[in-house]
Amino acid sequence: MNRLTDLLKIKYPIIQGGMIWCSGWRLVSAVSNNGGLGLIGSGSMYPDNLEHHIKKCKENTANSFGVNLPLMYPDIKEHIKVILKEKIKIVFTSAGNPMTYTKILKDNGVTVVHVVANKKFALKCIDAGVDAIVAEGFEAGGHNGHEEITSLCLIPQIRSCIDIPLIAAGGIASGSSMLAAMSLGADGVQIGSLFASSKESSAHNNFKDKILQAKDGDTKLTLKEIMPVRLLKNEFYNQVINAYKTNASREDLVNILSKGRAKIGMFEGDVKNGELEIGQVAAMIDSIKEVKDIFTDLIEDFNFHNNRISDIHFD
Amino acid sequence: MNRLTDLLKIKYPIIQGGMIWCSGWRLVSAVSNNGGLGLIGSGSMYPDNLEHHIKKCKENTANSFGVNLPLMYPDIKEHIKVILKEKIKIVFTSAGNPMTYTKILKDNGVTVVHVVANKKFALKCIDAGVDAIVAEGFEAGGHNGHEEITSLCLIPQIRSCIDIPLIAAGGIASGSSMLAAMSLGADGVQIGSLFASSKESSAHNNFKDKILQAKDGDTKLTLKEIMPVRLLKNEFYNQVINAYKTNASREDLVNILSKGRAKIGMFEGDVKNGELEIGQVAAMIDSIKEVKDIFTDLIEDFNFHNNRISDIHFD
Repeated sequence: MNRLTDLLKIKYPIIQGGMIWCSGWRLVSAVSNNGGLGLIGSGSMYPDNLEHHIKKCKENTANSFGVNLPLMYPDIKEHIKVILKEKIKIVFTSAGNPMTYTKILKDNGVTVVHVVANKKFALKCIDAGVDAIVAEGFEAGGHNGHEEITSLCLIPQIRSCIDIPLIAAGGIASGSSMLAAMSLGADGVQIGSLFASSKESSAHNNFKDKILQAKDGDTKLTLKEIMPVRLLKNEFYNQVINAYKTNASREDLVNILSKGRAKIGMFEGDVKNGELEIGQVAAMIDSIKEVKDIFTDLIEDFNFHNNRISDIHFD
Repeated sequence: MNRLTDLLKIKYPIIQGGMIWCSGWRLVSAVSNNGGLGLIGSGSMYPDNLEHHIKKCKENTANSFGVNLPLMYPDIKEHIKVILKEKIKIVFTSAGNPMTYTKILKDNGVTVVHVVANKKFALKCIDAGVDAIVAEGFEAGGHNGHEEITSLCLIPQIRSCIDIPLIAAGGIASGSSMLAAMSLGADGVQIGSLFASSKESSAHNNFKDKILQAKDGDTKLTLKEIMPVRLLKNEFYNQVINAYKTNASREDLVNILSKGRAKIGMFEGDVKNGELEIGQVAAMIDSIKEVKDIFTDLIEDFNFHNNRISDIHFD
């Protein structure tokens, strides 16, 4: 279809974000079987668990799939060992410097895509020799950039400074937003929240219910001193806000966070005390769908809006 | 062209935001003469000055133009008197409740458009009987919503809950971003920063130079306790940040602001001590253009990207 689908050997330029606690083999293989690129979220896996999910993906899809690798993962060398041993063909790296691990991956035949939130890191990606870039806007769930650049501003800015394939992320949960991203110069999209809420996501049902209930303004970017993260407002979020009000130190904040909060909330379903990472588009998600229906709806909606818009021509 | 251009009696669905200190009669009449809708920024004018700018607009364009009226303006009743006396046909209200003044304006034959940053206020607009809505995203310059919803997320959410014409604002400074906004369901766009930087803008040249120099990440939404506002980072911004670091009270912050900072910066050109309101798209503006060239470029860019994208159809 285009150079991105050629690079990743997929039918549709739709990538499922490799989200912690949501992106196990069931979600990944379903996305890949439906023509997108599924990504295992290795950030919440021990190396042996990552290996298990890779093996299950191989059993459950013959199509392209990959691994998302947060570069701040403590045991990252073990993860890379697993990735190379299992001959993974596609790795999306994030949350770190693309110079560090791109070479070893590419030397082993891996296609490397790196996630950025500003121009400076996009240019670093080019120096590092990555194959494609994900530009992730302020509206995205989970970890985010310090500059708070929205997708509408970020995509064209990154497009203007790189020539390699560009994937837009943040704020995309419909065919019309996919069309908007491609209007801005993206070759494809990475979708997180919508797949986090899918039937095949390994997120706890309590978390999925909270996604369906979310209204506009119910997520917020916070914990900016440690690493900015977009969360659904809940009791845990209020605890963070109260910590700010009492002038908590960075250490206090780290302490509030470092109790496995993400796992508690997203995987175990304690939606009061857990950290619920989700994007602003949660406000537009109102049912739990199967991955195949998500694809059908995205494609139909994209084609509908592209037909609607294509007649507009200004003299 | 569409129902928005019909409503406002303009050729292109392009509205120039009625920005304080930037949007006098020269800019407004140039925009209207080139087929868009110019809006006088009454928020930085005394009533007699507003009257002067209206009269000059009438002398300099035969086309539709309007007035932006911030509802928090202290002497608002005097402004409304001037607007009605001068038989202004189009008013964009912002920064306040649309229930308060929509009726008196509409009873006097004025087309009323209100600016919102969330769904709740969009629904209030419908109750108030406004004729169209501007949905303004987090990336926009100047005053902004508390919910921090980006244009990519806000436009489709507002579109889904209203049937009247919808204008997208925030993050738009090119034909491709205009196309993106219309892909998301907007009937047209409101453009601020790009017109603030234009030759005809009444902004001081020092401020225009700062817009050209701005890089990605150089603006920030701040002063959220008072009223969130997106500013270019400078010495004044640093003063605000330092106030936060020393736990300044709301009163301290009001005090820092209430020294005519916006006028000092944007109109008088003291770009160190003044408040410089501008959107994230400032990073994409690299030359001061005449309004007519801005229109030519927007239209060409829109058509180019729409042609590029219109062939994409997924099976």
